[in-house]
Amino acid sequence: MKKILITMLLICMVAPCSFSQKKDTKAVLRNIHQRKSVRTYSDKKVPDEIVTELLKAAMAAPTGMNIQPWYFVVLRDTSQYDRIFEGNGNMKKFKESSVVIVLCADTTVTRPPRNNPNGPAVTTPNSIWRDDLGACTENLLLAVEAYGLGACWTACYPFERQMTPVKRELGLPDNVVPYSIVPIGYPRLDEKPKDKWKPEKVHYGKW
Amino acid sequence: MKKILITMLLICMVAPCSFSQKKDTKAVLRNIHQRKSVRTYSDKKVPDEIVTELLKAAMAAPTGMNIQPWYFVVLRDTSQYDRIFEGNGNMKKFKESSVVIVLCADTTVTRPPRNNPNGPAVTTPNSIWRDDLGACTENLLLAVEAYGLGACWTACYPFERQMTPVKRELGLPDNVVPYSIVPIGYPRLDEKPKDKWKPEKVHYGKW
Repeated sequence: MKKILITMLLICMVAPCSFSQKKDTKAVLRNIHQRKSVRTYSDKKVPDEIVTELLKAAMAAPTGMNIQPWYFVVLRDTSQYDRIFEGNGNMKKFKESSVVIVLCADTTVTRPPRNNPNGPAVTTPNSIWRDDLGACTENLLLAVEAYGLGACWTACYPFERQMTPVKRELGLPDNVVPYSIVPIGYPRLDEKPKDKWKPEKVHYGKW
Repeated sequence: MKKILITMLLICMVAPCSFSQKKDTKAVLRNIHQRKSVRTYSDKKVPDEIVTELLKAAMAAPTGMNIQPWYFVVLRDTSQYDRIFEGNGNMKKFKESSVVIVLCADTTVTRPPRNNPNGPAVTTPNSIWRDDLGACTENLLLAVEAYGLGACWTACYPFERQMTPVKRELGLPDNVVPYSIVPIGYPRLDEKPKDKWKPEKVHYGKW
């Protein structure tokens, strides 16, 4: 009996470790599929330490030529929310959120040329900062989901009606555009993700 | 002794479950921070079932107005790779990849207006499909990382030099643009992620 118990104990102790790679795969995919737009929040505060982890995850996104054109403005003061969402019809519901992160891009960011750190600076061509900020926003949303929080990607760039009040309220420099606005909080309702899998959208070899 | 063993066994059996939410959080964040551009691949084949899971993860990304403008072309025939990467200087190294996924966008996609499924179709304004495809590419890359695979986001849109050979090789309709090209395989080297966390990129309340 003792031998059986010891064997079972050893299995229980070792198994979680040996399956951890597989568990990570499942956890990551589950999180990707569970992510959804959350528009109603409880009044529980999102701790500052979690906000920092969300920002770290956002800054881990890939960027073209590793140029990292992003900047972030974190808002906690709900009196600012009115002005931030002024150009957006959905304003009211976002006022409940615990924190709002405005993801911005420096559209003029440059870097030294590869293989020659002292050469003339290279500018990001053709607005590829827009692609970087898309990936960055998605990283943020996935980290939000991982913490059991809820968020909603609210478009800002390239809509003048949305951008103008944000630029004014935040005092953004001319070369910085507000790309997306992400209100975040603990979900108040049990909102469900959409199933968007459509195998007919996949072609093999040719269109 | 037996009592102690039974107690330990129970703890070992229950603990992994009760910590699973926390573990998921850690697994998801670890995966986000571990994602990196991988440009060298072993000759091990990426199974078709995993490719399908990668595509499912990609299609779980958020899209503006839920318009889902994406399409995917999956390439396995390495003879196509030359032509796909023709406009890209890094072509050679990508020839080792087991599968290449070309992420495309229908730039003219429309949807029925909200609250009126029979009303006139609404077009996605101002190329917001570009933001959708950015998030979609990032989801794909994160799923790649979760499977222990490696990939590299290769820009295509809006560069004519990159897009032209891809459009021709895949026979894309006029309204469909190739957005990004993602070669995928099992990593041959132990490439490391970059630490891009820069707290000075975060502002609070105002710029």
